[in-house]
Amino acid sequence: MSQHSPEPDDVFAWIDDAERAREQAGLVRTLRPRPAASPLLDLASNDYLGLSRHPETVRGAREAAERWGAGATGSRLVTGTTELHAELERELAAFCGFEAALVLSSGYAANLAAVTALSDRGTLVVSDAGNHASIVDGCRLSRAGIEVIPHSDPEAARKALGAQEGRSMLVSDSVFSVDGDAAPLAAYAAACRERGAALVVDDAHGLGVLGEGGRGALHAAGLAGAPGVVATLTLSKSLGSQGGAVLGPAKVIRHLVNTARTFIFDTGLAPAAAGAALASLRLLRREPERAGRGREPERAGRAREVADRLYGRLTASGLTAARPDAAVVSVRAPSAAAALRWAADCREAGLSVGCFRPPSVPDGISRLRLTARADLTGDEIDRAVETILRTAPAGATDC
Amino acid sequence: MSQHSPEPDDVFAWIDDAERAREQAGLVRTLRPRPAASPLLDLASNDYLGLSRHPETVRGAREAAERWGAGATGSRLVTGTTELHAELERELAAFCGFEAALVLSSGYAANLAAVTALSDRGTLVVSDAGNHASIVDGCRLSRAGIEVIPHSDPEAARKALGAQEGRSMLVSDSVFSVDGDAAPLAAYAAACRERGAALVVDDAHGLGVLGEGGRGALHAAGLAGAPGVVATLTLSKSLGSQGGAVLGPAKVIRHLVNTARTFIFDTGLAPAAAGAALASLRLLRREPERAGRGREPERAGRAREVADRLYGRLTASGLTAARPDAAVVSVRAPSAAAALRWAADCREAGLSVGCFRPPSVPDGISRLRLTARADLTGDEIDRAVETILRTAPAGATDC
Ligand SMILES: Cc1ncc(COP(=O)(O)O)c(C=O)c1O
Ligand SMILES: Cc1ncc(COP(=O)(O)O)c(C=O)c1O
Repeated sequence: MSQHSPEPDDVFAWIDDAERAREQAGLVRTLRPRPAASPLLDLASNDYLGLSRHPETVRGAREAAERWGAGATGSRLVTGTTELHAELERELAAFCGFEAALVLSSGYAANLAAVTALSDRGTLVVSDAGNHASIVDGCRLSRAGIEVIPHSDPEAARKALGAQEGRSMLVSDSVFSVDGDAAPLAAYAAACRERGAALVVDDAHGLGVLGEGGRGALHAAGLAGAPGVVATLTLSKSLGSQGGAVLGPAKVIRHLVNTARTFIFDTGLAPAAAGAALASLRLLRREPERAGRGREPERAGRAREVADRLYGRLTASGLTAARPDAAVVSVRAPSAAAALRWAADCREAGLSVGCFRPPSVPDGISRLRLTARADLTGDEIDRAVETILRTAPAGATDC
Repeated sequence: MSQHSPEPDDVFAWIDDAERAREQAGLVRTLRPRPAASPLLDLASNDYLGLSRHPETVRGAREAAERWGAGATGSRLVTGTTELHAELERELAAFCGFEAALVLSSGYAANLAAVTALSDRGTLVVSDAGNHASIVDGCRLSRAGIEVIPHSDPEAARKALGAQEGRSMLVSDSVFSVDGDAAPLAAYAAACRERGAALVVDDAHGLGVLGEGGRGALHAAGLAGAPGVVATLTLSKSLGSQGGAVLGPAKVIRHLVNTARTFIFDTGLAPAAAGAALASLRLLRREPERAGRGREPERAGRAREVADRLYGRLTASGLTAARPDAAVVSVRAPSAAAALRWAADCREAGLSVGCFRPPSVPDGISRLRLTARADLTGDEIDRAVETILRTAPAGATDC
């Protein structure tokens, strides 16, 4: 155990102050380890298609670990690229409609890689104000000039890009993670075409949910494989695994292999995670056929349908929510404290929901975040709606 | 497949120029997918203890995937913390001698988290010039003042820290990844104590190799659990899995939970990776007992012994290498082109070695990087030495 006992002059004394400030603001976050068989109904995870525990996905993880070992053993350019990684990259690219793909250890790393490797000191990077933390960090890490534009504002994008002489790039989530609203991709793409700018889109919450058979938001918008378009993905949400990817023209991928620091200096994705993502992907690819045969819609469509039902019933009862563009339903709470209490009451009643408060919300408005899993049953949807309404705080119907 | 064909005005035309420049400089990197049963003798991976394919480690991955699913399903503060993550954190902290631990999705993410969350605008971060890319990126992402000091120079550290009024922090690899040399940890710690600075040490290449039973470089230096000391780890090298961790006082860990962006906004580590790392850790914990019973040294000691043998035999034959402080043996090559050719010749002869060239080397000197796996047999060591000597380029004996 510890080789030392605390000394009087603690270099981390400043943390005590920070902790006190968090306590006073009611903003302390603590980890809550969950058991393997949780009694809670899950409307909080990003396991949109319920694949993380699907037998085929789990088998993909198991067989990969047994065949390739528990780790990739090195960075991708040394020993960390297996034939399994190459296979996953080929199939991801083909499924989503891009020429090539590169798999990284997380979606976070994929965004850092794409933004930093595709920009330099002379580049202007225009970033939507609602973008995910990993894009924001990518912008901070890059040496590019950064202009943050108002959320979902193609006119602002056009203006910002127009002020640039040299290279420029627009970067945006496809579906914004907190509120679940979709970016104006077609208009963003038009602005980029007009200005000769690259478009980088993080499709973390679109893959598996939007587009034909879950091929993602860019595919849905007819932008998959367009020459100036790059997508970043995560394997950790709809695909039920872990990891991230960058998709785009082959030469963009080659450029990342040669220059992206979070790719070059990071151990390759564990075979089990690659194998699970590949198994999920193959499952998705088979889906449309299955839908053709039965009455049950494909998984992607089912997730969107569940989201619409949750939204419809909660707003019909007076709660304030944004119409879902994908599988996230965001319900406003009157305050941070009320949101916290609401989520806790749901949990006590057997329902797990996300709770987003400052500083994790872009606009200062706290909310419950519900994810519409494709595999929720009608009974489970009833139970979720009933619980959320029963525990709603005073003021939840007019905020 | 692609929804588009290339257009004439390619926004990525600049990549063509970058590719040409790389080709002319002979610095093109390409991925080489390896088969599951590679015929090559591996002296290139960071699987120092050979655990990535150990039956217990693989079983840890498999059982975790079956029990917990293929993915963590959400960020650690939402649904991504399982009891397995908590168990791994407790056992990692106890094994390495720290009060608490936090597991992240990679060692890269762990370094970004530690450096950014423990500094602010008013902090001076002093960083060793040999530090890993992930520490460098952590420094770039932080809003702190950064001072890069010459490699392994405690006097420079003392001077830099002395110029600071407010908070300060010294950050260093324990074992530098390219050359395998150890940092002057005791002297760095003394400088920090004298200046009231925190010490953050990345023990990626020390864990499993240095210290009693592989408890790491900080444990070996008597610094594990010291009040101002924080360690970062990776689960992807000696533990044969994937993921990273930050170890330190409990309040430091709580502070990271509340503020570290690469922790908060990233999906939790996949259960299979957590389970594999935990199985490896338990195997290491049992090791010293086994060593007491047989003639075979514990795994950590064996890795160091293999490194010493490789070093001894290669330098006795005239090659230039740094005396290994851990399990990395770095052999100088006369040029980048010669290093590349040498590594390719080794590969052709059935031996996989690392090849580091600019810009991945701190000093412009290209080298072969050999990792001394604990499970290399005497015959394999003979074969490796024989192959490296036989393929050595002209000039390798005096560079
Ligand atoms: C929009 C978005 N991008 C990227 C990420 C990061 O992906 P990962 O968790 O795989 O690192 C997330 C969430 O985690 C996200 O919501
Ligand atoms: C010194 C050092 N720190 C951190 C890392 C990153 O760890 P990971 O590969 O788990 O992201 C590496 C290598 O990958 C390393 O060599």
